[in-house]
Amino acid sequence: MQKLFVIKIGGQIIDEASALEGFLDDFARLDGNKILVHGGGKLASEVSRALGIEPRLVDGRRVTDQETLKVVTMVYGGWINKTIVATLQGRACQALGLSGADGNIIAARRRAVKNGLDFGYVGDIDRVDGAQLARLLAMGISPVLAPLTHDGHGNLLNTNADTIASAVASELAPRFHVSLIYCFDKPGVLASADEATVISPLTRAQYQQLQRDGAVAAGMLPKLDNAFAALAAGVASVVLCHAAYMVQVAKGNHRVGTWLRL
Amino acid sequence: MQKLFVIKIGGQIIDEASALEGFLDDFARLDGNKILVHGGGKLASEVSRALGIEPRLVDGRRVTDQETLKVVTMVYGGWINKTIVATLQGRACQALGLSGADGNIIAARRRAVKNGLDFGYVGDIDRVDGAQLARLLAMGISPVLAPLTHDGHGNLLNTNADTIASAVASELAPRFHVSLIYCFDKPGVLASADEATVISPLTRAQYQQLQRDGAVAAGMLPKLDNAFAALAAGVASVVLCHAAYMVQVAKGNHRVGTWLRL
Repeated sequence: MQKLFVIKIGGQIIDEASALEGFLDDFARLDGNKILVHGGGKLASEVSRALGIEPRLVDGRRVTDQETLKVVTMVYGGWINKTIVATLQGRACQALGLSGADGNIIAARRRAVKNGLDFGYVGDIDRVDGAQLARLLAMGISPVLAPLTHDGHGNLLNTNADTIASAVASELAPRFHVSLIYCFDKPGVLASADEATVISPLTRAQYQQLQRDGAVAAGMLPKLDNAFAALAAGVASVVLCHAAYMVQVAKGNHRVGTWLRL
Repeated sequence: MQKLFVIKIGGQIIDEASALEGFLDDFARLDGNKILVHGGGKLASEVSRALGIEPRLVDGRRVTDQETLKVVTMVYGGWINKTIVATLQGRACQALGLSGADGNIIAARRRAVKNGLDFGYVGDIDRVDGAQLARLLAMGISPVLAPLTHDGHGNLLNTNADTIASAVASELAPRFHVSLIYCFDKPGVLASADEATVISPLTRAQYQQLQRDGAVAAGMLPKLDNAFAALAAGVASVVLCHAAYMVQVAKGNHRVGTWLRL
């Protein structure tokens, strides 16, 4: 079975040009099949404000009305996605940017209103087209996925990038030996505020205990839920690490990052 | 030899939601291989102004500094491209949006400073990857091309959509029986301001005479130069017509639009 890296790069790294360049250097040099999934970062909020639309976030998730959908489509699907693709092409990586609408790669459903809260044009994933992604990979292409999906009826939907990475890795698990790496600005899942307290390996039972103890930062919960879901779906390895250690993790170095275990 | 439609849709149609929807209905229903190339329209200028960047055009071409490049990448590569793709997917058309950087489809060179005029991040096309486009078409995909290319060194470049349509059609002419259709908001090339005076067929000699007489609108000159270049490069048919007549032209109806002849 061929190897495949599915790598998620978070907002914090995208916000810093030099950190992003360094990360893309590393990604471009990675051998073999690879998919990059990127988030949005602060840029969407900046552009929103510049256009006079005040961003509204609930539990870290962006409420996406029609005008905000326009902004995230411009920023995620346009500026960030195409800048990453052009940067990778400049490093001899055959990158190709996609939203979920492109080639119908990721179909989603608009999230239902719950407890009076309407997230607007936010999508929950229905289906990833693994065969289509596999065809692109077989052509030597490295897909670069923006955090946007579509409902199949003409509407784009803002969709969490961590969830996209998990769903794509899970869908491709029967076809590839998939390594899913969540890159962010911390060395891993921490037992305390001290960055030296990286927990690895982290089992699902330990994670549940940490949750009960309130020891996991709220922002990490959906990321870890997505990460464990991928592992349960047959993804060979799932690791959370600082973007600077991505290459080490890709090489199988268990001394960096948080490696998950069921 | 298989047929291929390369269809350019202009800014005026993109600016009007209902006209664009009608056009995309038609495009989605078109049988066989097809590529859509879209321009930008007024949206880029609107977003520019909203962000406090005053648009600057010379001879109808946008001077593209770093900030303007960001705007056109957001608007052309993000909002317009992804909206068109999602709309087509909602009509069962397997659309996939691309800038020239994606899959290295179109490589360009930054335009040299001439007579002290620096267009900034504006690209003149060096190479279209016809083999890559042909592979996507063979997968049943309809590429939707944004007016953006890249220099292969990490930089995106703003590139005229008429030129992209011409270059793509020309590159694919040895592989397909290509029909290139420039859709805009006039019924064709006009002999006067009267819309009933459509010239068809229009030969290159006639075109040169019209130029000498100053009878062609200035904005039409680059479009017609591009159109004749494609014909000279072996594109089977090149037509300029109103977007509403695209289906008729695609069916081979010579009574609508301006059909070019060498």
